[in-house]
Amino acid sequence: MKLATLRTASGGTTAAIATGDATYLALPASDVGALLGQPDWRAVVDAAAGETIGNPEYAALTPNARKVICCGLNYGDHIQEMGRELPEYPTLFAKYADTLVGANDAVEVHGSGRVDWEAELAVVVGSELYRADEDQAREAIAGYTVANDVSMRDWQNRTLQWFQGKAWDATTPVGPVMVTPDEAGGHFDVRGYVNGELVQQGNTSTLVFGPAQLLSYISQFTILRPGDLVLTGTPGGVGMGMTPPRFLQDGDILTTEIDGIGCLENTFRIHSSVAANA
Amino acid sequence: MKLATLRTASGGTTAAIATGDATYLALPASDVGALLGQPDWRAVVDAAAGETIGNPEYAALTPNARKVICCGLNYGDHIQEMGRELPEYPTLFAKYADTLVGANDAVEVHGSGRVDWEAELAVVVGSELYRADEDQAREAIAGYTVANDVSMRDWQNRTLQWFQGKAWDATTPVGPVMVTPDEAGGHFDVRGYVNGELVQQGNTSTLVFGPAQLLSYISQFTILRPGDLVLTGTPGGVGMGMTPPRFLQDGDILTTEIDGIGCLENTFRIHSSVAANA
Repeated sequence: MKLATLRTASGGTTAAIATGDATYLALPASDVGALLGQPDWRAVVDAAAGETIGNPEYAALTPNARKVICCGLNYGDHIQEMGRELPEYPTLFAKYADTLVGANDAVEVHGSGRVDWEAELAVVVGSELYRADEDQAREAIAGYTVANDVSMRDWQNRTLQWFQGKAWDATTPVGPVMVTPDEAGGHFDVRGYVNGELVQQGNTSTLVFGPAQLLSYISQFTILRPGDLVLTGTPGGVGMGMTPPRFLQDGDILTTEIDGIGCLENTFRIHSSVAANA
Repeated sequence: MKLATLRTASGGTTAAIATGDATYLALPASDVGALLGQPDWRAVVDAAAGETIGNPEYAALTPNARKVICCGLNYGDHIQEMGRELPEYPTLFAKYADTLVGANDAVEVHGSGRVDWEAELAVVVGSELYRADEDQAREAIAGYTVANDVSMRDWQNRTLQWFQGKAWDATTPVGPVMVTPDEAGGHFDVRGYVNGELVQQGNTSTLVFGPAQLLSYISQFTILRPGDLVLTGTPGGVGMGMTPPRFLQDGDILTTEIDGIGCLENTFRIHSSVAANA
Protein backbone atom coordinates (compact mmCIF):
# COMPACT_ATOMS: atom_id res chain seq x y z
CA MET A 1 0.00 0.00 0.00
CA LYS A 2 0.93 3.62 -0.51
CA LEU A 3 0.26 6.11 2.31
CA ALA A 4 0.56 9.88 2.19
CA THR A 5 0.05 12.91 4.39
CA LEU A 6 -2.21 15.34 2.53
CA ARG A 7 -3.21 18.91 3.26
CA THR A 8 -6.92 19.39 3.88
CA ALA A 9 -9.21 22.24 2.87
CA SER A 10 -9.48 23.29 6.53
CA GLY A 11 -5.74 23.96 6.76
CA GLY A 12 -4.79 20.75 8.53
CA THR A 13 -3.43 17.46 7.28
CA THR A 14 -4.71 13.91 7.08
CA ALA A 15 -3.15 10.54 6.54
CA ALA A 16 -4.49 8.92 3.37
CA ILE A 17 -4.15 5.74 1.34
CA ALA A 18 -3.69 5.78 -2.42
CA THR A 19 -6.58 4.09 -4.19
CA GLY A 20 -5.56 4.94 -7.74
CA ASP A 21 -3.50 7.33 -9.77
CA ALA A 22 -3.47 10.51 -7.66
CA THR A 23 -6.64 9.46 -5.84
CA TYR A 24 -6.63 8.95 -2.09
CA LEU A 25 -8.94 7.87 0.70
CA ALA A 26 -8.61 9.86 3.94
CA LEU A 27 -7.63 7.90 7.06
CA PRO A 28 -8.47 8.74 10.70
CA ALA A 29 -5.05 10.19 11.62
CA SER A 30 -3.50 13.61 11.10
CA ASP A 31 -0.45 12.26 9.28
CA VAL A 32 1.35 9.03 8.44
CA GLY A 33 3.46 9.26 11.60
CA ALA A 34 0.36 9.56 13.80
CA LEU A 35 -1.21 6.66 11.89
CA LEU A 36 1.81 4.42 12.46
CA GLY A 37 1.65 5.32 16.16
CA GLN A 38 -1.61 3.35 16.38
CA PRO A 39 -0.57 -0.25 17.10
CA ASP A 40 -3.42 -1.56 14.91
CA TRP A 41 -2.69 0.84 12.04
CA ARG A 42 -3.07 -1.83 9.36
CA ALA A 43 -6.59 -2.59 10.61
CA VAL A 44 -7.34 1.14 10.65
CA VAL A 45 -6.28 1.34 7.01
CA ASP A 46 -8.31 -1.76 6.09
CA ALA A 47 -11.41 -0.19 7.64
CA ALA A 48 -10.88 3.12 5.83
CA ALA A 49 -14.15 4.78 4.94
CA GLY A 50 -13.08 8.41 4.78
CA GLU A 51 -13.42 11.12 2.17
CA THR A 52 -12.02 10.58 -1.32
CA ILE A 53 -9.33 13.12 -2.23
CA GLY A 54 -8.73 13.72 -5.92
CA ASN A 55 -6.17 16.51 -6.14
CA PRO A 56 -3.65 15.56 -3.47
CA GLU A 57 -1.50 18.29 -1.97
CA TYR A 58 1.35 16.58 -0.19
CA ALA A 59 2.56 17.67 3.24
CA ALA A 60 5.76 16.29 4.75
CA LEU A 61 5.11 12.57 5.23
CA THR A 62 5.83 12.51 8.98
CA PRO A 63 5.81 16.19 10.03
CA ASN A 64 6.12 15.37 13.73
CA ALA A 65 8.84 12.71 13.58
CA ARG A 66 10.71 12.77 16.88
CA LYS A 67 13.89 11.64 15.12
CA VAL A 68 15.22 12.16 11.61
CA ILE A 69 18.57 10.40 11.52
CA CYS A 70 20.75 10.53 8.44
CA CYS A 71 23.56 8.33 7.25
CA GLY A 72 26.30 9.99 5.24
CA LEU A 73 28.87 8.33 2.99
CA ASN A 74 26.85 5.19 2.37
CA TYR A 75 27.13 4.67 -1.41
CA GLY A 76 30.48 3.40 -2.62
CA ASP A 77 30.60 5.82 -5.57
CA HIS A 78 29.67 8.88 -3.48
CA ILE A 79 32.30 7.95 -0.88
CA GLN A 80 34.97 7.94 -3.57
CA GLU A 81 33.62 11.21 -5.00
CA MET A 82 34.10 12.83 -1.59
CA GLY A 83 37.65 11.45 -1.41
CA ARG A 84 37.06 9.05 1.48
CA GLU A 85 37.55 5.34 2.18
CA LEU A 86 34.84 2.70 2.66
CA PRO A 87 33.69 2.97 6.27
CA GLU A 88 33.64 0.35 9.01
CA TYR A 89 30.77 2.15 10.78
CA PRO A 90 27.91 4.29 9.48
CA THR A 91 28.45 8.05 9.68
CA LEU A 92 25.32 9.36 11.41
CA PHE A 93 23.96 12.82 12.06
CA ALA A 94 20.65 14.18 13.30
CA LYS A 95 18.01 16.53 11.99
CA TYR A 96 14.83 17.77 13.60
CA ALA A 97 11.37 17.42 12.05
CA ASP A 98 11.30 21.19 11.40
CA THR A 99 13.56 20.46 8.42
CA LEU A 100 10.81 18.54 6.60
CA VAL A 101 8.63 19.90 3.77
CA GLY A 102 6.15 18.39 1.34
CA ALA A 103 6.91 16.72 -1.98
CA ASN A 104 5.99 19.74 -4.11
CA ASP A 105 6.60 22.60 -1.70
CA ALA A 106 8.77 25.56 -2.61
CA VAL A 107 11.95 25.59 -0.53
CA GLU A 108 13.08 28.99 0.78
CA VAL A 109 16.71 29.44 1.80
CA HIS A 110 17.96 32.63 3.45
CA GLY A 111 21.67 33.13 3.96
CA SER A 112 23.39 30.34 2.02
CA GLY A 113 24.96 30.59 -1.42
CA ARG A 114 25.93 26.91 -1.62
CA VAL A 115 22.69 24.96 -1.60
CA ASP A 116 23.36 21.39 -2.71
CA TRP A 117 21.26 18.30 -3.29
CA GLU A 118 21.35 14.77 -1.82
CA ALA A 119 18.69 12.41 -3.24
CA GLU A 120 18.00 9.64 -0.72
CA LEU A 121 15.91 6.62 0.11
CA ALA A 122 14.31 7.16 3.53
CA VAL A 123 13.10 4.41 5.83
CA VAL A 124 9.93 5.00 7.86
CA VAL A 125 9.95 3.34 11.28
CA GLY A 126 6.74 1.46 12.10
CA SER A 127 7.24 0.26 15.66
CA GLU A 128 9.43 0.92 18.66
CA LEU A 129 12.96 -0.36 18.33
CA TYR A 130 15.63 -0.37 21.02
CA ARG A 131 18.80 -2.46 21.08
CA ALA A 132 17.34 -4.55 18.27
CA ASP A 133 19.07 -6.99 15.97
CA GLU A 134 18.75 -6.77 12.19
CA ASP A 135 15.81 -9.16 11.97
CA GLN A 136 13.85 -7.15 14.52
CA ALA A 137 14.82 -3.96 12.70
CA ARG A 138 13.61 -5.34 9.36
CA GLU A 139 10.26 -6.21 10.95
CA ALA A 140 9.97 -2.63 12.26
CA ILE A 141 10.25 -1.01 8.83
CA ALA A 142 6.82 0.41 7.97
CA GLY A 143 7.90 1.45 4.52
CA TYR A 144 10.09 3.52 2.26
CA THR A 145 9.86 7.04 0.95
CA VAL A 146 11.86 9.61 -1.02
CA ALA A 147 13.84 12.42 0.61
CA ASN A 148 16.35 15.03 -0.40
CA ASP A 149 18.86 15.91 2.31
CA VAL A 150 19.37 19.42 0.93
CA SER A 151 22.64 20.74 2.36
CA MET A 152 24.03 24.26 2.78
CA ARG A 153 27.66 23.44 2.03
CA ASP A 154 29.02 26.81 3.14
CA TRP A 155 27.56 26.28 6.61
CA GLN A 156 28.24 22.53 6.62
CA ASN A 157 31.94 23.11 6.00
CA ARG A 158 32.37 25.86 8.58
CA THR A 159 33.18 23.25 11.24
CA LEU A 160 33.85 19.53 11.56
CA GLN A 161 30.22 18.81 12.44
CA TRP A 162 27.74 18.88 9.55
CA PHE A 163 24.63 19.73 11.60
CA GLN A 164 24.51 23.47 10.83
CA GLY A 165 24.51 22.79 7.09
CA LYS A 166 21.85 20.07 7.35
CA ALA A 167 19.29 21.31 9.86
CA TRP A 168 17.70 24.25 8.08
CA ASP A 169 13.97 24.49 8.68
CA ALA A 170 11.71 23.48 5.81
CA THR A 171 14.46 22.47 3.39
CA THR A 172 14.26 18.64 3.38
CA PRO A 173 11.44 17.43 1.11
CA VAL A 174 10.06 14.00 2.01
CA GLY A 175 7.30 12.03 0.32
CA PRO A 176 5.15 11.97 -1.69
CA VAL A 177 4.17 8.57 -0.31
CA MET A 178 5.39 5.77 1.90
CA VAL A 179 5.32 2.38 0.19
CA THR A 180 5.10 -0.70 2.39
CA PRO A 181 7.88 -3.30 2.01
CA ASP A 182 5.58 -5.94 0.47
CA GLU A 183 4.96 -3.60 -2.46
CA ALA A 184 8.28 -1.80 -2.59
CA GLY A 185 10.67 -4.63 -3.42
CA GLY A 186 14.19 -4.90 -2.10
CA HIS A 187 16.32 -2.38 -3.98
CA PHE A 188 15.70 1.06 -5.36
CA ASP A 189 17.01 3.27 -8.14
CA VAL A 190 17.54 6.74 -6.67
CA ARG A 191 17.88 9.69 -9.04
CA GLY A 192 18.22 13.45 -8.73
CA TYR A 193 17.62 16.07 -11.43
CA VAL A 194 18.21 19.83 -11.55
CA ASN A 195 15.89 21.57 -14.01
CA GLY A 196 15.33 18.21 -15.67
CA GLU A 197 19.02 17.34 -16.05
CA LEU A 198 20.04 14.06 -14.40
CA VAL A 199 22.74 14.85 -11.82
CA GLN A 200 22.63 11.89 -9.42
CA GLN A 201 21.85 8.24 -9.64
CA GLY A 202 22.54 5.14 -7.65
CA ASN A 203 20.99 1.88 -6.62
CA THR A 204 20.45 1.01 -2.96
CA SER A 205 21.96 -2.43 -3.64
CA THR A 206 25.31 -0.60 -3.40
CA LEU A 207 24.64 0.78 0.11
CA VAL A 208 27.42 -0.06 2.54
CA PHE A 209 24.83 -0.17 5.36
CA GLY A 210 21.33 -1.28 4.34
CA PRO A 211 18.05 -0.15 5.95
CA ALA A 212 17.73 -2.91 8.55
CA GLN A 213 21.41 -2.67 9.44
CA LEU A 214 21.11 1.10 9.99
CA LEU A 215 18.00 0.79 12.15
CA SER A 216 19.60 -1.92 14.26
CA TYR A 217 22.80 0.08 14.68
CA ILE A 218 21.01 3.29 15.67
CA SER A 219 18.75 1.41 18.08
CA GLN A 220 21.79 0.30 20.10
CA PHE A 221 21.94 3.78 21.62
CA THR A 222 18.58 5.48 21.02
CA ILE A 223 15.00 4.32 20.72
CA LEU A 224 13.27 4.63 17.36
CA ARG A 225 9.51 5.15 17.28
CA PRO A 226 6.70 4.99 14.73
CA GLY A 227 7.05 7.84 12.25
CA ASP A 228 10.77 8.36 12.81
CA LEU A 229 12.81 8.58 9.61
CA VAL A 230 16.22 7.20 8.74
CA LEU A 231 17.77 8.66 5.59
CA THR A 232 20.10 6.13 4.01
CA GLY A 233 22.62 8.40 2.30
CA THR A 234 23.06 9.78 -1.20
CA PRO A 235 24.70 8.38 -4.34
CA GLY A 236 27.39 10.16 -6.37
CA GLY A 237 26.61 13.35 -8.23
CA VAL A 238 26.21 16.04 -5.60
CA GLY A 239 27.05 19.58 -6.71
CA MET A 240 29.96 19.95 -4.27
CA GLY A 241 31.69 17.02 -5.98
CA MET A 242 31.54 18.57 -9.45
CA THR A 243 34.41 20.42 -11.17
CA PRO A 244 33.76 23.27 -10.76
CA PRO A 245 31.30 22.84 -7.88
CA ARG A 246 27.70 23.54 -8.79
CA PHE A 247 24.95 24.74 -6.49
CA LEU A 248 21.23 25.45 -6.75
CA GLN A 249 20.27 28.89 -8.06
CA ASP A 250 17.14 30.88 -7.29
CA GLY A 251 14.31 29.39 -9.32
CA ASP A 252 15.93 26.00 -9.92
CA ILE A 253 13.71 22.93 -9.76
CA LEU A 254 15.09 19.94 -7.88
CA THR A 255 13.54 16.58 -8.74
CA THR A 256 14.17 13.50 -6.61
CA GLU A 257 12.88 10.20 -7.93
CA ILE A 258 12.76 6.61 -6.78
CA ASP A 259 11.16 4.03 -9.06
CA GLY A 260 8.25 2.32 -7.35
CA ILE A 261 7.83 5.06 -4.75
CA GLY A 262 7.46 8.42 -6.42
CA CYS A 263 8.89 11.79 -7.13
CA LEU A 264 9.65 15.02 -5.25
CA GLU A 265 9.66 18.23 -7.28
CA ASN A 266 10.71 21.34 -5.39
CA THR A 267 11.35 24.85 -6.64
CA PHE A 268 14.09 26.69 -4.76
CA ARG A 269 13.90 30.31 -3.64
CA ILE A 270 17.42 31.24 -2.64
CA HIS A 271 18.18 34.51 -0.88
CA SER A 272 21.90 34.40 -0.32
CA SER A 273 22.01 37.66 1.63
CA VAL A 274 23.85 37.22 4.90
CA ALA A 275 21.43 36.94 7.79
CA ALA A 276 21.91 38.54 11.19
CA ASN A 277 24.97 37.20 13.00
CA ALA A 278 25.82 34.75 10.24
CA MET B 1 13.66 32.40 40.68
CA LYS B 2 14.64 28.74 40.57
CA LEU B 3 12.37 26.31 38.70
CA ALA B 4 12.59 22.52 38.65
CA THR B 5 10.80 19.52 37.18
CA LEU B 6 9.99 17.14 40.03
CA ARG B 7 8.67 13.60 40.06
CA THR B 8 5.29 13.21 41.73
CA ALA B 9 3.94 10.39 43.90
CA SER B 10 1.56 9.40 41.10
CA GLY B 11 4.43 8.61 38.73
CA GLY B 12 4.25 11.84 36.73
CA THR B 13 6.18 15.08 36.92
CA THR B 14 5.35 18.67 37.81
CA ALA B 15 7.01 22.00 37.32
CA ALA B 16 7.83 23.62 40.65
CA ILE B 17 9.38 26.77 42.07
CA ALA B 18 11.96 26.69 44.84
CA THR B 19 10.68 28.42 47.99
CA GLY B 20 13.57 27.52 50.25
CA ASP B 21 16.38 25.05 50.70
CA ALA B 22 15.07 21.89 48.99
CA THR B 23 11.46 23.04 49.36
CA TYR B 24 9.29 23.58 46.32
CA LEU B 25 5.82 24.75 45.42
CA ALA B 26 4.12 22.78 42.61
CA LEU B 27 3.14 24.75 39.49
CA PRO B 28 0.31 23.96 37.04
CA ALA B 29 2.50 22.44 34.30
CA SER B 30 3.97 18.97 33.85
CA ASP B 31 7.54 20.22 33.53
CA VAL B 32 9.57 23.40 33.12
CA GLY B 33 9.43 23.15 29.33
CA ALA B 34 5.63 22.96 29.37
CA LEU B 35 5.53 25.87 31.82
CA LEU B 36 7.70 28.04 29.56
CA GLY B 37 5.39 27.17 26.67
CA GLN B 38 2.68 29.23 28.38
CA PRO B 39 3.17 32.81 27.17
CA ASP B 40 2.18 34.17 30.59
CA TRP B 41 4.39 31.75 32.52
CA ARG B 42 5.72 34.41 34.88
CA ALA B 43 2.16 35.25 35.93
CA VAL B 44 1.44 31.53 36.36
CA VAL B 45 4.43 31.28 38.69
CA ASP B 46 3.43 34.42 40.62
CA ALA B 47 -0.03 32.95 41.19
CA ALA B 48 1.36 29.61 42.37
CA ALA B 49 -0.81 28.01 45.01
CA GLY B 50 0.07 24.35 44.54
CA GLU B 51 1.25 21.63 46.86
CA THR B 52 4.45 22.11 48.88
CA ILE B 53 7.08 19.49 48.06
CA GLY B 54 9.72 18.84 50.71
CA ASN B 55 11.85 16.00 49.39
CA PRO B 56 12.35 16.88 45.74
CA GLU B 57 13.13 14.11 43.28
CA TYR B 58 14.44 15.78 40.16
CA ALA B 59 13.38 14.68 36.69
CA ALA B 60 15.13 16.00 33.59
CA LEU B 61 14.41 19.73 33.54
CA THR B 62 12.78 19.81 30.08
CA PRO B 63 12.06 16.14 29.28
CA ASN B 64 10.16 17.00 26.09
CA ALA B 65 12.53 19.57 24.60
CA ARG B 66 12.11 19.50 20.84
CA LYS B 67 15.74 20.52 20.39
CA VAL B 68 18.85 19.94 22.44
CA ILE B 69 21.65 21.61 20.52
CA CYS B 70 25.22 21.40 21.74
CA CYS B 71 28.25 23.51 21.04
CA GLY B 72 31.61 21.78 21.07
CA LEU B 73 35.03 23.35 21.37
CA ASN B 74 33.85 26.54 23.04
CA TYR B 75 36.31 27.01 25.93
CA GLY B 76 39.77 28.19 24.95
CA ASP B 77 41.51 25.72 27.28
CA HIS B 78 39.44 22.72 26.14
CA ILE B 79 40.08 23.60 22.48
CA GLN B 80 43.82 23.50 23.10
CA GLU B 81 43.46 20.24 25.07
CA MET B 82 41.82 18.67 22.02
CA GLY B 83 44.62 19.94 19.79
CA ARG B 84 42.50 22.38 17.78
CA GLU B 85 42.61 26.08 16.92
CA LEU B 86 40.21 28.79 18.10
CA PRO B 87 37.14 28.61 15.85
CA GLU B 88 35.58 31.27 13.64
CA TYR B 89 32.17 29.56 13.91
CA PRO B 90 30.56 27.48 16.65
CA THR B 91 30.78 23.71 16.19
CA LEU B 92 27.21 22.49 16.64
CA PHE B 93 25.63 19.07 16.95
CA ALA B 94 22.21 17.79 17.89
CA LYS B 95 20.76 15.52 20.53
CA TYR B 96 17.22 14.37 21.11
CA ALA B 97 15.33 14.79 24.39
CA ASP B 98 15.56 11.02 24.97
CA THR B 99 19.16 11.66 26.06
CA LEU B 100 18.06 13.64 29.14
CA VAL B 101 17.92 12.30 32.71
CA GLY B 102 17.38 13.84 36.12
CA ALA B 103 19.98 15.47 38.35
CA ASN B 104 20.42 12.46 40.64
CA ASP B 105 19.42 9.62 38.36
CA ALA B 106 21.63 6.61 37.84
CA VAL B 107 22.97 6.49 34.28
CA GLU B 108 23.04 3.09 32.57
CA VAL B 109 25.36 2.55 29.62
CA HIS B 110 25.32 -0.65 27.59
CA GLY B 111 28.00 -1.23 25.00
CA SER B 112 30.61 1.47 25.54
CA GLY B 113 33.88 1.15 27.39
CA ARG B 114 34.89 4.81 26.97
CA VAL B 115 32.31 6.84 28.84
CA ASP B 116 33.59 10.38 29.32
CA TRP B 117 32.31 13.55 31.01
CA GLU B 118 31.61 17.07 29.74
CA ALA B 119 30.36 19.48 32.41
CA GLU B 120 28.39 22.29 30.77
CA LEU B 121 26.30 25.36 31.30
CA ALA B 122 22.98 24.89 29.47
CA VAL B 123 20.72 27.70 28.31
CA VAL B 124 16.96 27.20 28.52
CA VAL B 125 15.00 28.89 25.73
CA GLY B 126 11.98 30.86 26.96
CA SER B 127 10.32 32.07 23.78
CA GLU B 128 10.32 31.39 20.04
CA LEU B 129 13.39 32.57 18.24
CA TYR B 130 13.99 32.54 14.49
CA ARG B 131 16.56 34.55 12.55
CA ALA B 132 17.08 36.64 15.67
CA ASP B 133 19.90 39.03 16.50
CA GLU B 134 21.84 38.78 19.75
CA ASP B 135 19.64 41.24 21.64
CA GLN B 136 16.51 39.30 20.75
CA ALA B 137 18.29 36.08 21.68
CA ARG B 138 19.31 37.47 25.07
CA GLU B 139 15.68 38.42 25.74
CA ALA B 140 14.60 34.88 24.88
CA ILE B 141 16.79 33.22 27.52
CA ALA B 142 14.48 31.87 30.22
CA GLY B 143 17.36 30.77 32.41
CA TYR B 144 20.41 28.63 32.97
CA THR B 145 20.89 25.09 34.17
CA VAL B 146 23.60 22.46 34.62
CA ALA B 147 24.18 19.63 32.16
CA ASN B 148 26.74 16.95 31.52
CA ASP B 149 27.15 16.01 27.86
CA VAL B 150 28.28 12.48 28.70
CA SER B 151 30.03 11.09 25.63
CA MET B 152 30.83 7.57 24.50
CA ARG B 153 34.22 8.29 22.98
CA ASP B 154 34.60 4.88 21.30
CA TRP B 155 31.39 5.48 19.34
CA GLN B 156 32.03 9.22 18.90
CA ASN B 157 35.37 8.52 17.25
CA ARG B 158 34.14 5.78 14.93
CA THR B 159 33.30 8.38 12.27
CA LEU B 160 33.76 12.10 11.60
CA GLN B 161 30.33 12.93 13.02
CA TRP B 162 30.02 12.88 16.81
CA PHE B 163 26.27 12.14 16.98
CA GLN B 164 26.53 8.41 17.70
CA GLY B 165 28.73 9.06 20.73
CA LYS B 166 26.51 11.83 22.05
CA ALA B 167 22.92 10.69 21.54
CA TRP B 168 22.61 7.77 23.94
CA ASP B 169 19.25 7.62 25.64
CA ALA B 170 19.12 8.68 29.29
CA THR B 171 22.79 9.59 29.61
CA THR B 172 22.74 13.42 29.73
CA PRO B 173 21.83 14.68 33.21
CA VAL B 174 20.27 18.14 33.25
CA GLY B 175 19.05 20.18 36.22
CA PRO B 176 18.51 20.27 39.13
CA VAL B 177 16.99 23.72 38.55
CA MET B 178 16.77 26.51 36.02
CA VAL B 179 17.79 29.86 37.44
CA THR B 180 16.39 32.97 35.74
CA PRO B 181 18.93 35.49 34.40
CA ASP B 182 18.04 38.18 36.98
CA GLU B 183 19.20 35.81 39.74
CA ALA B 184 21.92 33.95 37.90
CA GLY B 185 24.40 36.72 37.14
CA GLY B 186 26.49 36.90 34.00
CA HIS B 187 29.26 34.31 34.31
CA PHE B 188 29.48 30.87 35.82
CA ASP B 189 32.11 28.61 37.29
CA VAL B 190 31.58 25.15 35.82
CA ARG B 191 33.18 22.15 37.55
CA GLY B 192 33.17 18.40 37.12
CA TYR B 193 34.21 15.77 39.67
CA VAL B 194 34.66 11.99 39.48
CA ASN B 195 34.19 10.29 42.85
CA GLY B 196 34.79 13.66 44.49
CA GLU B 197 38.02 14.42 42.62
CA LEU B 198 37.96 17.68 40.66
CA VAL B 199 38.61 16.86 36.99
CA GLN B 200 37.18 19.84 35.10
CA GLN B 201 36.77 23.50 35.71
CA GLY B 202 36.25 26.61 33.67
CA ASN B 203 34.46 29.92 33.72
CA THR B 204 31.93 30.82 31.08
CA SER B 205 33.61 34.22 30.70
CA THR B 206 36.15 32.31 28.56
CA LEU B 207 33.49 30.99 26.13
CA VAL B 208 34.34 31.76 22.52
CA PHE B 209 30.60 31.97 21.75
CA GLY B 210 28.39 33.15 24.62
CA PRO B 211 24.77 32.12 25.27
CA ALA B 212 23.04 34.93 23.32
CA GLN B 213 25.50 34.59 20.44
CA LEU B 214 24.84 30.84 20.23
CA LEU B 215 21.06 31.23 20.28
CA SER B 216 21.18 33.93 17.60
CA TYR B 217 23.49 31.86 15.41
CA ILE B 218 21.37 28.70 15.68
CA SER B 219 18.18 30.66 15.03
CA GLN B 220 19.49 31.70 11.61
CA PHE B 221 18.62 28.23 10.32
CA THR B 222 16.22 26.61 12.79
CA ILE B 223 13.54 27.86 15.13
CA LEU B 224 14.09 27.57 18.88
CA ARG B 225 11.10 27.14 21.14
CA PRO B 226 10.32 27.35 24.87
CA GLY B 227 11.99 24.47 26.69
CA ASP B 228 14.65 23.88 24.06
CA LEU B 229 18.16 23.56 25.44
CA VAL B 230 21.47 24.84 24.14
CA LEU B 231 24.53 23.32 25.78
CA THR B 232 27.41 25.78 25.68
CA GLY B 233 30.39 23.44 25.60
CA THR B 234 32.76 22.02 28.18
CA PRO B 235 35.97 23.33 29.75
CA GLY B 236 39.26 21.48 29.83
CA GLY B 237 39.66 18.29 31.81
CA VAL B 238 37.74 15.63 29.93
CA GLY B 239 38.97 12.06 30.36
CA MET B 240 39.88 11.64 26.69
CA GLY B 241 42.35 14.52 27.03
CA MET B 242 44.24 12.93 29.93
CA THR B 243 47.52 11.01 29.65
CA PRO B 244 46.70 8.17 29.74
CA PRO B 245 43.03 8.68 28.84
CA ARG B 246 40.63 8.07 31.72
CA PHE B 247 37.01 6.96 31.48
CA LEU B 248 34.14 6.34 33.87
CA GLN B 249 34.02 2.93 35.52
CA ASP B 250 31.00 1.01 36.75
CA GLY B 251 29.94 2.57 40.05
CA ASP B 252 31.68 5.91 39.54
CA ILE B 253 29.88 9.04 40.71
CA LEU B 254 29.98 12.00 38.34
CA THR B 255 29.31 15.38 39.92
CA THR B 256 28.65 18.48 37.82
CA GLU B 257 28.46 21.79 39.62
CA ILE B 258 27.80 25.41 38.72
CA ASP B 259 27.90 28.00 41.49
CA GLY B 260 24.58 29.78 41.82
CA ILE B 261 22.65 27.09 39.97
CA GLY B 262 23.25 23.73 41.57
CA CYS B 263 24.73 20.30 41.32
CA LEU B 264 24.16 17.08 39.38
CA GLU B 265 25.28 13.85 41.04
CA ASN B 266 24.92 10.73 38.92
CA THR B 267 26.08 7.20 39.58
CA PHE B 268 27.16 5.30 36.45
CA ARG B 269 26.27 1.71 35.68
CA ILE B 270 28.49 0.69 32.82
CA HIS B 271 27.99 -2.55 30.94
CA SER B 272 30.68 -2.54 28.31
CA SER B 273 29.54 -5.78 26.70
CA VAL B 274 29.14 -5.40 22.97
CA ALA B 275 25.47 -5.04 22.05
CA ALA B 276 23.83 -6.64 19.02
CA ASN B 277 25.30 -5.41 15.75
CA ALA B 278 27.65 -2.96 17.46
